[in-house]
Amino acid sequence: MRALVPYADQAKRNGLRVYHLNIGQPDISSPSEVFETIKSIGIDLLPYSKSQGTDALRVAATEYYKKHDIEVSPDDIIVTTGASEGIFFLLHSITDIGDEIVTPEPFYANYFGFATISGVKIISVETKLDDNFSLPDVSSFEEKITDKTKAILICNPGNPTGNLYSKAEMEELGKLVVKYNLQLVVDEVYREFVYDCNERHSSVLQIKGLEDHAIMVDSVSKRYSLCGARVGFVVSKNKLLKDTILKFAQARLSPPTYGQIAAEVALKSSESYIKNSVLEYKSRRDLLVSELKKIPGIKVSVPKGAFYCMVALPLESAEDFAKWMLGAFQLDGETVMIAPAPGFYNNSNEGKNQVRIAYVLNKGDLKKSVQILAKGLEVYNSR
Amino acid sequence: MRALVPYADQAKRNGLRVYHLNIGQPDISSPSEVFETIKSIGIDLLPYSKSQGTDALRVAATEYYKKHDIEVSPDDIIVTTGASEGIFFLLHSITDIGDEIVTPEPFYANYFGFATISGVKIISVETKLDDNFSLPDVSSFEEKITDKTKAILICNPGNPTGNLYSKAEMEELGKLVVKYNLQLVVDEVYREFVYDCNERHSSVLQIKGLEDHAIMVDSVSKRYSLCGARVGFVVSKNKLLKDTILKFAQARLSPPTYGQIAAEVALKSSESYIKNSVLEYKSRRDLLVSELKKIPGIKVSVPKGAFYCMVALPLESAEDFAKWMLGAFQLDGETVMIAPAPGFYNNSNEGKNQVRIAYVLNKGDLKKSVQILAKGLEVYNSR
Ligand SMILES: Cc1ncc(COP(=O)(O)O)c(C=O)c1O
Ligand SMILES: Cc1ncc(COP(=O)(O)O)c(C=O)c1O
Repeated sequence: MRALVPYADQAKRNGLRVYHLNIGQPDISSPSEVFETIKSIGIDLLPYSKSQGTDALRVAATEYYKKHDIEVSPDDIIVTTGASEGIFFLLHSITDIGDEIVTPEPFYANYFGFATISGVKIISVETKLDDNFSLPDVSSFEEKITDKTKAILICNPGNPTGNLYSKAEMEELGKLVVKYNLQLVVDEVYREFVYDCNERHSSVLQIKGLEDHAIMVDSVSKRYSLCGARVGFVVSKNKLLKDTILKFAQARLSPPTYGQIAAEVALKSSESYIKNSVLEYKSRRDLLVSELKKIPGIKVSVPKGAFYCMVALPLESAEDFAKWMLGAFQLDGETVMIAPAPGFYNNSNEGKNQVRIAYVLNKGDLKKSVQILAKGLEVYNSR
Repeated sequence: MRALVPYADQAKRNGLRVYHLNIGQPDISSPSEVFETIKSIGIDLLPYSKSQGTDALRVAATEYYKKHDIEVSPDDIIVTTGASEGIFFLLHSITDIGDEIVTPEPFYANYFGFATISGVKIISVETKLDDNFSLPDVSSFEEKITDKTKAILICNPGNPTGNLYSKAEMEELGKLVVKYNLQLVVDEVYREFVYDCNERHSSVLQIKGLEDHAIMVDSVSKRYSLCGARVGFVVSKNKLLKDTILKFAQARLSPPTYGQIAAEVALKSSESYIKNSVLEYKSRRDLLVSELKKIPGIKVSVPKGAFYCMVALPLESAEDFAKWMLGAFQLDGETVMIAPAPGFYNNSNEGKNQVRIAYVLNKGDLKKSVQILAKGLEVYNSR
């Protein structure tokens, strides 16, 4: 994805407007109380907080989780500098060098980065666009387990797939991790972004009997458009794991103070805030999917959650096409930047013709972007 | 040090007032512009910043360094989530598992933590309280270099020693790292806290010929009392190193937005702010050292910089004494918490009777604390 940045920069220097379909940075305003509170803080210096995060924030988080039928205590929560740091701490805590983590593919590209830093190998279980990236049978996971496997990692709802795992699927994975004494790590940073009224998000922490085997990763980045706050959570009831993660947390002293204040206010904000955000994302998803489906030769997966949509294009290399869109194409002075899917695959041959489209722009721009994409495809394929 | 926390908590529950001589959390107000600016920001969501930090902050940092006769460009600076993350990124970038880093002992205890996470061994060069912890001859460093050595790490001014390394000493170390193709990593988070008018701080980035071998770590935590901002810098002119560190930075997406705004304002604040802070810390140091010297049997090192003072006590175990002070002693309802020095030593037999005292409390409290310490020692040694 980063290989495209110079192309986008050049396009902008050439005076083009670039619609960013490539990044997961939400555009909906945060709860307004967040900024009101920040403005009202009376402090004259910024101290370190506790390494596990402020008591106030961890209490606010337990109350938030309680509303979502998740019973945890403040001691089960370690505040991290974004979910990013949380994933990093927990990978380091549950693995040694050479160990393996099993995860469905395609997956969030930075899992790669964290695994590499920890010296851990990602072993992937294939999921398919044709199948809407639904979770394969639990036996596909079991097959991949070796004596080096330390965890199964899933992202629910999924980035980039938009897939949502059912309670039954989570329970099956739960049985597997207990059987092999692994951890079930679930990245729930998109936990409330679920768009179909007959679907509900099931948290890994709601599964009975998994107390020592379940780790949830969460973040305020996406839910409250607070990416720059750098506040996430690792939540677990496993005492040994919490103690280990706390040691990492202590080495880096503390999470950011302002971010923690912002996160606390956001977690306490009214439920209508999230409801409205979800309605907005849902209507964007509906628009995006129906507009994309009009493009000849395109295959669209229908995301049930998060805010990404995977699309297979009628061409060979999504990467070449993405570069061409930035470097050689425009429609009335505008173009789009898309994320080629190979970065989300372990085996980079998979998904060669796929792209991920993030629907974090308003519907007008979104519709415009799909028109540009359609026209681009037409021109590209008739060169 | 953490082993003492439950004792301190218990003392507080018992109604005692505990003076914290154990932590390096500054108490002087930050530049007031910082909070004025934060209050005036008009935003409605918090986006990620660039992974290397905002352009505005990196430009402000180059201007700050320029005032201190350090010529760097914004591209030489990577903004990190505190110096902590910076040290972590750079250790990971310059070492492989099993490699070694040479550093004078005693050293900042968290270097241990970061080295452990990176799988790196700390090889220490002894410095002595009797000698005011001055840097031993460069041959003592050279002796420790093996084919696994990747860097020499020093903290200037030093935590916990308060030592300040001269330009000549830095140049000697510079020659050594060039000779053996190592990196000279200098933790300058206390860079402006220098208390004697005939002493000047020499930055590693001022040494000629070290372009590919010098890495500076910096932070706004101590200088501007902005510990909770979580903003630090790794500064280097080594292109390969910067590229590698940037990869780590990209995996964790971005440093905190509010912290970066606070840091930018702080770096631009008037020079009188720092001057006044330094004067205040200097007068505390003078008071602390002269009060401590009155205690019979005590040996005091005179710190030239930072805000810590190492003291050898007339007893066997500083750790036992620190616990006893919290658990079994009080003077008119008050006691002190001190940091036993063994945590700062590689070889934990060294410094067994030493403690580190941070002078980040006002002079009244500081004087009181020393009185309590003196009385405690008297009672402890006549049990
Ligand atoms: C699946 C997933 N996990 C974690 C993260 C990291 O989020 P944070 O901003 O909390 O570090 C992201 C960000 O894009 C994400 O998509
Ligand atoms: C020598 C030294 N380096 C680095 C740090 C970490 O500072 P930061 O708050 O920037 O992570 C500290 C904090 O005490 C320190 O004393």
